Amino acid sequence: MTLREQVCRANLELADSGLVIGTFGNLSLVDRAAGVFAIKPSGVRYSELTPDKIVLVSIDTGQVVDSTLRPSSDTPTHLELYRAFSCGSIVHTHSEFATMFAQSRTAIGCMGTTHADYFRGDIPVTRPMTQAEVDVDYEANTGKVIVETFRTLALSPDEVPAVLVANHAPFTWGPDAATAIEHARVLEFVARMDWQARVMAPDAPRPDQFLVDKHYFRKHGQGAYYGQK
Amino acid sequence: MTLREQVCRANLELADSGLVIGTFGNLSLVDRAAGVFAIKPSGVRYSELTPDKIVLVSIDTGQVVDSTLRPSSDTPTHLELYRAFSCGSIVHTHSEFATMFAQSRTAIGCMGTTHADYFRGDIPVTRPMTQAEVDVDYEANTGKVIVETFRTLALSPDEVPAVLVANHAPFTWGPDAATAIEHARVLEFVARMDWQARVMAPDAPRPDQFLVDKHYFRKHGQGAYYGQK
Amino acid sequence: MTLREQVCRANLELADSGLVIGTFGNLSLVDRAAGVFAIKPSGVRYSELTPDKIVLVSIDTGQVVDSTLRPSSDTPTHLELYRAFSCGSIVHTHSEFATMFAQSRTAIGCMGTTHADYFRGDIPVTRPMTQAEVDVDYEANTGKVIVETFRTLALSPDEVPAVLVANHAPFTWGPDAATAIEHARVLEFVARMDWQARVMAPDAPRPDQFLVDKHYFRKHGQGAYYGQK
Amino acid sequence: MTLREQVCRANLELADSGLVIGTFGNLSLVDRAAGVFAIKPSGVRYSELTPDKIVLVSIDTGQVVDSTLRPSSDTPTHLELYRAFSCGSIVHTHSEFATMFAQSRTAIGCMGTTHADYFRGDIPVTRPMTQAEVDVDYEANTGKVIVETFRTLALSPDEVPAVLVANHAPFTWGPDAATAIEHARVLEFVARMDWQARVMAPDAPRPDQFLVDKHYFRKHGQGAYYGQK
Repeated sequence: MTLREQVCRANLELADSGLVIGTFGNLSLVDRAAGVFAIKPSGVRYSELTPDKIVLVSIDTGQVVDSTLRPSSDTPTHLELYRAFSCGSIVHTHSEFATMFAQSRTAIGCMGTTHADYFRGDIPVTRPMTQAEVDVDYEANTGKVIVETFRTLALSPDEVPAVLVANHAPFTWGPDAATAIEHARVLEFVARMDWQARVMAPDAPRPDQFLVDKHYFRKHGQGAYYGQK
Repeated sequence: MTLREQVCRANLELADSGLVIGTFGNLSLVDRAAGVFAIKPSGVRYSELTPDKIVLVSIDTGQVVDSTLRPSSDTPTHLELYRAFSCGSIVHTHSEFATMFAQSRTAIGCMGTTHADYFRGDIPVTRPMTQAEVDVDYEANTGKVIVETFRTLALSPDEVPAVLVANHAPFTWGPDAATAIEHARVLEFVARMDWQARVMAPDAPRPDQFLVDKHYFRKHGQGAYYGQK
Repeated sequence: MTLREQVCRANLELADSGLVIGTFGNLSLVDRAAGVFAIKPSGVRYSELTPDKIVLVSIDTGQVVDSTLRPSSDTPTHLELYRAFSCGSIVHTHSEFATMFAQSRTAIGCMGTTHADYFRGDIPVTRPMTQAEVDVDYEANTGKVIVETFRTLALSPDEVPAVLVANHAPFTWGPDAATAIEHARVLEFVARMDWQARVMAPDAPRPDQFLVDKHYFRKHGQGAYYGQK
Repeated sequence: MTLREQVCRANLELADSGLVIGTFGNLSLVDRAAGVFAIKPSGVRYSELTPDKIVLVSIDTGQVVDSTLRPSSDTPTHLELYRAFSCGSIVHTHSEFATMFAQSRTAIGCMGTTHADYFRGDIPVTRPMTQAEVDVDYEANTGKVIVETFRTLALSPDEVPAVLVANHAPFTWGPDAATAIEHARVLEFVARMDWQARVMAPDAPRPDQFLVDKHYFRKHGQGAYYGQK
């Protein structure tokens, strides 16, 4: 499959996931050797999406390459993340509970092993953007404030492959499109459970860090023993 | 397609949207040149709806024109809105969370960019109607209290194409039927998220107005750059 | 259709409604001229239900008539209600939110026009049953405590065709099976909205009684003008 | 059907139940005469599950028998439960509300007859595990802390066939696979209702024990009269 075909297919899988309402979502995939990433065109309904409508963007220049449609308006955000992080695919949704946490400027707490199987700690929320950042180069600045968040909190984007943009919505990423989508799914699931817990038992104790690490490293890294060899 | 065919099809799309429980919903579409709007008949199940059952109503007289069935009992509300607003289509549902906000007489707050992409600010709620307004010409008075709400709050029905009628339910509108339905869908979605946020974090800060305007005008008006040219 | 065929079909419609989890539900239909009502057999899965398995019960004696299977364990409750109320069909479910209100011993408040279109006021909850009532003739006593609730509160079972049995679940009824099921659907819907409102805005004002009556009598009684003539 | 075929089929039924997100779930079935239990392989997607991939494990030694794939990483937990309890099948899910209660270290309260029809009292939550228990033999220790919970609380695993592991998720069991799955379904259902009640009415009174026992023993034991003879 070409990069365009993969991105088209993955965007349709994202649309089927239930995480995207209307056109509130997009997925990109990078080909680092070729120096481009492919992304959904802006405002095109998923039912009308075909590989030839996928837009290629240069990582170096940020310019559209060999494409007829406009890329997603969020393209400069993806560009900033590909430049700063080593991920292979990025997903943006307005999935309900993750978006609600973003709107409430509240990190999604790591409350148990479901979360720890995928994310080694809380899902951070960015600071609100300034008027200057919003008025000019808004979408690029969205990417910059995400990168700033991981630097400030000394978080690894590999160990915590998700973020909440304040008053906006989540981004997730991963080595490939399927994993980036899986992270978006699990993010929404743990967001729902954290919301329920906060509403019922706001003072419930957090899991011990050794339990979080046990589950995270049971599935990731050299000592992993989950799944088949 | 004739006006009746369009309205029949759009009412069936509305029924499929999940926003309508039982027969709690209706959609109308106006032909301003012809001076009529077409609306669902009263109490007819969606499974039995055909174009010939759609009812035409004169904007000038409010009387049924060339139709055999009674129009929706909410017809006088639609009439008042077509007279006061410049919209092309009106949707009424009892969608769950928007209705719950209406019953709680609580405006749906603009909490983030999902909301701001469609509505430039909070979704207002009307004042409760008086006994006189309810006892005589109830449905026409429902329309009048909606119009009064927009005048009192100095809101533009184009920028905020939705309202909550106190202790009743929402109405949305738009230039065409598809957009009016889309507004009903997004209204329900942002209502759910605002409810969740109020329950979890009632004091969460609102988005800055410049962020709301950025998103609203990214998609609407002369400076819009969302979607294809 | 025979009474057995009608009850079989209506029980399957109830199973499809999403209001019944597992086998937590049953529907009965009365033939007052014949002096019998027909009800689902106990513990039989909906997928295996056929008309010949439906059980007939005498209103006069409460005994099974001309049937091979045991009737629903809730049969004595249905019997008491058919004796005391003039309804034609009774539905019992453990639908989620109505059951939760029953478990919380909290009446479902009439918060708006959705509720008032079907129920002229709050949905009452019975008092808890005594140990004597539970230990002997439990299911008949369940019916008796429902009837007592309507008498004590001076409520009309025609105007409020639903009840919550404390720490148990709802019963609804109507002139025919379709209406009894519709009441169960709407009950669950207004229960969800009342729960959401209580969680978000416990002190929200109730609708004025004249608005409740306007909607109730718009659809019921001599002055009704909803639907077709 | 062979044990492997039964377990494959039951795991697929579990996947269809909506209780399992991604690969967060597994089911095992024991053949006590043969001294083995069969369990899902680790990290294999349900869509790729076939009987030959099911893994057999010796109850005596805990070792894999005559199988090519690794068993579920939770296998040592199942082993401990088969050794301590007399159940025939065990189900593990991360179903949403039951998992949220586990994460909040909160027992699911018996609030009414829906719960009492299946579980004779609250669903207990284990104590958090120590670092030593997590670092070495984590999954076996998970089983041991479950058994300890039932001993400490003097609960019967037959009368309360479910548990919440602190900060992790639920396990349920039963005499056969269908019943273990049914317990997982009902557990999630009563967890949702208990959560709703705690949020709305945290001080709502519990059902009397005689009502709980009436419903539990209406369906279980010698005096049961629910269902057909």
